[in-house]
Amino acid sequence: MDLVPIDDIRAAAADIAATVLRTPLLRTRWDDELWLKPENLQPVGSFKLRGATHAVARLDPARRERGVVTHSSGNHGQALAYAARAAGIPCTVVVPEGAPEVKVAQIRALGATVLLVPPARRLVEAQRVAAETGAELVPPFDDPRIIAGQGTIGLEILDDLPGVEVVLVPVGGGGLSSGVATAVKALRPATAVIGVEPLLAADARDSLAAGRLVPWDVADTYRTCADGLRTGLSELTLAHLRERLDGIVTVTEEEIRAAVGRLARDARLVVEPSGAVAAAARLFRPDELPAGRTVAVLTGGNVDPALLADLVAA
Amino acid sequence: MDLVPIDDIRAAAADIAATVLRTPLLRTRWDDELWLKPENLQPVGSFKLRGATHAVARLDPARRERGVVTHSSGNHGQALAYAARAAGIPCTVVVPEGAPEVKVAQIRALGATVLLVPPARRLVEAQRVAAETGAELVPPFDDPRIIAGQGTIGLEILDDLPGVEVVLVPVGGGGLSSGVATAVKALRPATAVIGVEPLLAADARDSLAAGRLVPWDVADTYRTCADGLRTGLSELTLAHLRERLDGIVTVTEEEIRAAVGRLARDARLVVEPSGAVAAAARLFRPDELPAGRTVAVLTGGNVDPALLADLVAA
Repeated sequence: MDLVPIDDIRAAAADIAATVLRTPLLRTRWDDELWLKPENLQPVGSFKLRGATHAVARLDPARRERGVVTHSSGNHGQALAYAARAAGIPCTVVVPEGAPEVKVAQIRALGATVLLVPPARRLVEAQRVAAETGAELVPPFDDPRIIAGQGTIGLEILDDLPGVEVVLVPVGGGGLSSGVATAVKALRPATAVIGVEPLLAADARDSLAAGRLVPWDVADTYRTCADGLRTGLSELTLAHLRERLDGIVTVTEEEIRAAVGRLARDARLVVEPSGAVAAAARLFRPDELPAGRTVAVLTGGNVDPALLADLVAA
Repeated sequence: MDLVPIDDIRAAAADIAATVLRTPLLRTRWDDELWLKPENLQPVGSFKLRGATHAVARLDPARRERGVVTHSSGNHGQALAYAARAAGIPCTVVVPEGAPEVKVAQIRALGATVLLVPPARRLVEAQRVAAETGAELVPPFDDPRIIAGQGTIGLEILDDLPGVEVVLVPVGGGGLSSGVATAVKALRPATAVIGVEPLLAADARDSLAAGRLVPWDVADTYRTCADGLRTGLSELTLAHLRERLDGIVTVTEEEIRAAVGRLARDARLVVEPSGAVAAAARLFRPDELPAGRTVAVLTGGNVDPALLADLVAA
C-alpha cells in the first residue's frame, strides 16, 4: 500500500496556510518538559480543518465548482463546511436524523446544505449526492489528502521545538496520527511518536499488536466519553501506523475527565474529552512514556457546556 | 510629562521575544469582524508577563543580580516571578496576609520569595526590601518600562491584521491601554483604540471626562467581579490615555459574566472576568463602538474554577 510521503505534507502546509490557524506551542504551569499544541483554537474548533482544507485545495480544477460532500456530522463535517466556504464552493453534509439541533445549526451557519437521513443511510446518501451532483466525497480520515493535511501539525511542532523528543497524538480513525507520525519520523527519526487511545476504545492498540485490523464493537467503543475516538482504523491508516508509530498508550475515563479539568483550570484551554487524551497520558501515565521534551496535541474543543462545567469544578 | 515613544515599544518587543508567547489572533464563530488576542495563553496566564519581562530586561546591569521586588500578589506578582526566573535573578513578592494559599503557592513554585505582611504595609515592605537588598521595585503599571512592554501587544495586532479598524482593550491601572494606544496610534492613527471598563469601576471614564484623576472609592470598585480592573489610573497612565485613547466604553457585570461563558463555550478559551470586558463590549455594546474589523484583547485567564463552572453552564 502506498504511504503518504513527507513531500505531500509539505505541499499541504502551503495549501492550507490562508485558512488554517498556525497554532503556537504553549508551555504549561505544571510540567517543565511539556508543550501543548492547541488545535482546539482552530476555526470550528478542531484540527480537522487541516485535512478538510487540504482536500478542498486538491480538488480537480475542472470539477471544483461542483463542491464537496461528507457524511460526518461531527468535527469533520463542520471543518469541511468551513473549508468549502473559504474556497467559495458548495458543500453538503449528510447528517443522521436525531443529531443535536445545535450541530445542524452550526453546519448550516457555515453555509453548507444539511441532508437529514436515517442513520444507517448516511454513507449511501453521501455517495448518491456525489454521483448525482459531481461533488467530491471527502471522508473524515481514510484518505491520503486528509492524512497529509493533518500531518502539517507535525511540521509545525518540529519548526517550533526542533529538539522535541516525544510527540503524543490521539488515535481515532488514525488520520491525524498517520500524518503526524509521517512528518515527524521523516524529519527527526529519533523523536518518539506515541498514539493515545481511550482504554474503552483501544482498537488501534489491538490492531497494531495483531498486525491486522481488529475492529471493536460499536457498543463497546460507545462507552468512552471521548466521542471523537470511537472510530476504528482503516487499512490505510493501519498501514501508516505500523510503519511509523512508536507505540500506543491507553488512558482511563477518569484520567480523560481529569485532564479536561486540568487543561481548563491551569492551561486556560477548553478541550473536549477526545482532545485531552494526549495530555492525560503525560499527566497520568508518565512511566509508560519515553522521557524528555514532549508535545501533546490537543485536537479539539467542542465539548458539551454542562460536561465542561462538571469537569472544571471537579 | 514624558510619554512612552513608539521606539521603546519596538525595543521591548526584541527584549521579550525569548520569554513571552507571540499570541496569534483568533477568529470567532459568531462575529466575522472580530478577532481575539488571547493573552490568557501566556505563561502564568496573563499579558502582565510582557511588562514584567521588559522591566527585568532593562535592569541596570550593575544591579541586575540583586533582583526585583513587587507588592502585587495578583497576575503581576506571578508574572514578575516568572520573568525573574527566566532571567536567573532573585525575586521577592510582598503578599498581604490572608491572600489565597493557592496564589502564594504558585508564586513560590516560580522560585520567588514570598513575604507575608499586613495588607496596609505592602508598599512600605516592598520599598524596605528594595532599600535593604538593592532589588529593583517593579510596579504593576505606573512605569514606562511596563507600559512599553504591554504595548508590544499593539505591534503584534498591527503585524497580524494590518487593516484593523478598532482595538478594544481593558482598562485597570492603565498600563496595558497606554501601551497599546501608543503603539497603534503611532503606526496606524486611523485605527480607533477604545478602552473598556466595568461600569462598577469606571474611574478611567470619569478621569478622562474630567481631565484629571478621579479616583473611585475602594468600596465601590470592589463590587465588580473583574478584580483585575479595580485599580485606578496613575498620573502617568492618565497622561497617555488623554493623548492617545479614542474613548471608553463600560460594561455591566451581567455582560462580563456572559462574555466569560461565551468565550469558554464558543472560542474554547478560559478567560477571567477582567480579561473578558473587551469581548463583552463587542458582544453587547456594538452601537457604542466604531464599526469594522475589531480586535478584542483578552488579558488573562486566572479565574476561580467554581466561578468558571457557573459561567460556562449559564
